[in-house]
Amino acid sequence: MLNDKELLKIFNDYLLIQDFGKTPANTYDPIYYTLKSGGKRIRPVLCLMATELFGETYKTSLDIACGLEIFHNFTLLHDDMMDNSDVRRGNPTVHIKWTDNIALLSGDAMSVIAYKYIAKAKYLKESLELFSDTALKICEGQQLDMDYESMTDLNVDDYLKMINLKTAVFLAASLKLGAITANTNQENKNNIYEFGRNLGIAFQLQDDFLDVYGDTQNFKKNLGGDIVSNKKTFLLLKALELAKGNELKELKHWISLKEFDEQEKINAVKNIYDSLKIAKHSEEKNNFYMNQASQYFEKIEADKNRKDILMNYTKSLEKRKF
Amino acid sequence: MLNDKELLKIFNDYLLIQDFGKTPANTYDPIYYTLKSGGKRIRPVLCLMATELFGETYKTSLDIACGLEIFHNFTLLHDDMMDNSDVRRGNPTVHIKWTDNIALLSGDAMSVIAYKYIAKAKYLKESLELFSDTALKICEGQQLDMDYESMTDLNVDDYLKMINLKTAVFLAASLKLGAITANTNQENKNNIYEFGRNLGIAFQLQDDFLDVYGDTQNFKKNLGGDIVSNKKTFLLLKALELAKGNELKELKHWISLKEFDEQEKINAVKNIYDSLKIAKHSEEKNNFYMNQASQYFEKIEADKNRKDILMNYTKSLEKRKF
Repeated sequence: MLNDKELLKIFNDYLLIQDFGKTPANTYDPIYYTLKSGGKRIRPVLCLMATELFGETYKTSLDIACGLEIFHNFTLLHDDMMDNSDVRRGNPTVHIKWTDNIALLSGDAMSVIAYKYIAKAKYLKESLELFSDTALKICEGQQLDMDYESMTDLNVDDYLKMINLKTAVFLAASLKLGAITANTNQENKNNIYEFGRNLGIAFQLQDDFLDVYGDTQNFKKNLGGDIVSNKKTFLLLKALELAKGNELKELKHWISLKEFDEQEKINAVKNIYDSLKIAKHSEEKNNFYMNQASQYFEKIEADKNRKDILMNYTKSLEKRKF
Repeated sequence: MLNDKELLKIFNDYLLIQDFGKTPANTYDPIYYTLKSGGKRIRPVLCLMATELFGETYKTSLDIACGLEIFHNFTLLHDDMMDNSDVRRGNPTVHIKWTDNIALLSGDAMSVIAYKYIAKAKYLKESLELFSDTALKICEGQQLDMDYESMTDLNVDDYLKMINLKTAVFLAASLKLGAITANTNQENKNNIYEFGRNLGIAFQLQDDFLDVYGDTQNFKKNLGGDIVSNKKTFLLLKALELAKGNELKELKHWISLKEFDEQEKINAVKNIYDSLKIAKHSEEKNNFYMNQASQYFEKIEADKNRKDILMNYTKSLEKRKF
């Protein structure tokens, strides 16, 4: 069985020679531009790896892997429009480099192209159903994320529901699609799905944690962005749940301020987090989901060496933004 | 075999009891809103009718018909964003009633839901491939339509290419998907596709013609809108091809004006059209495609009475905006 680096290289080589179409250039150029801009290709690698885990060659799921990566990049393209993001992976976003209309429409085309690749699945009906259910959940998750921006009465469960839909089910489905293609049994399919889903939640918790507590060098972005924008992360929602009296007042004060010094706000909110031991709570929650993931992983019936390769790959992702 | 009015009623009854989901409301409310706002349901009726034409009950293609109508409404929703349209079928468009972000995302969800219905096709691989190819062409056609707004060196062939992609192939595919579901032979599938495609081009030519030459009472919209906005229709492109000397100068003058009295521009351009006999040219082109459509229709091997029902329906569409 090939490891993640080998599969990543194979996948990139395959993706980047694909011919989706040429004209109109305003439809297709943004698609090649987006897919060439890189990214960790986690979903396709998980899919290929799951296929190999259950004894089938990665070649049978290369097209599905393309479909997953194309759909992921489609969601990023439209999310960047919704978030007014100017930069993605160090390059101007599509709606900045071209126009809003071109970004909207080439995104639509990308989602159709993703389906064209999923349509090559060996077990088409099952694969297609999982893919569409997942795609719809991703839309719902993104909508919740936007809804949450203006909501004030959220709790940790709301947050977990959102990241489950927006992030976790896509990793879960990527693994399960590989398992479906390898034609393994239903228990294995379900267990690898739940492994991926719990892992996805843990990764997102970790990601939010690192936005406040990461070291800038490895994390490669400015810390505290989520605090500045009042993003409803686990950290903030847990703090709002635990804070009492003056601490709660101070936290709400910082959230309500329209104008502030960013670093001052980051320091103040972080102090409250520290006083409430939010880092520990986050770690515990993270451990809970990692532990759940492990339990599902244990139940997967497959060759031990192959399982180790998958486990090593997911461990390598744990400390990185994904 | 049921006629179009019966099939329309059955389809509407079926579509409007569908449960796509509920939460988040900002994802699903715009979808129900859009689908409840009406429309002629031409694509689903064509699909159901083609199924019955080849001896299968409409029931086998009801879900595909839903997929077609949902996808059509998805394209309208996103097109309205691109065109900054405030009103659709007498109601505020989704991006006006809600927000741009909600329109973008609920549109994305709608296209996934369309695929969920297409995924119920009896002959899945063939149906899915046709549907995706068509969906991609519709995106390309919309992009060409937008590209054309700022292009000055277009000819009639460019226009025909655009309306083929944006409009005609969708009608063609709706019929062919019905034929696929009825499991008829390959010749019938191809002939009904080409029948629908040529019909679609003729309908669009007619639509553009009626925007200038229709009577307001039946056409239910203000005439001359395409002239005001310099839309690159057959009429305008043919006029630019045929006009010489002062007439060409005058036509280009009206196109170049940024500020003008709308009725004055409509009258002036219409005078040029009249002098160049553009109405006759448009009619000839329309006849050419109607004639092509008839030839493919003749080749379709099916019960004569059933063919008559389809023919009567398409005739009834001819004089209406679709």
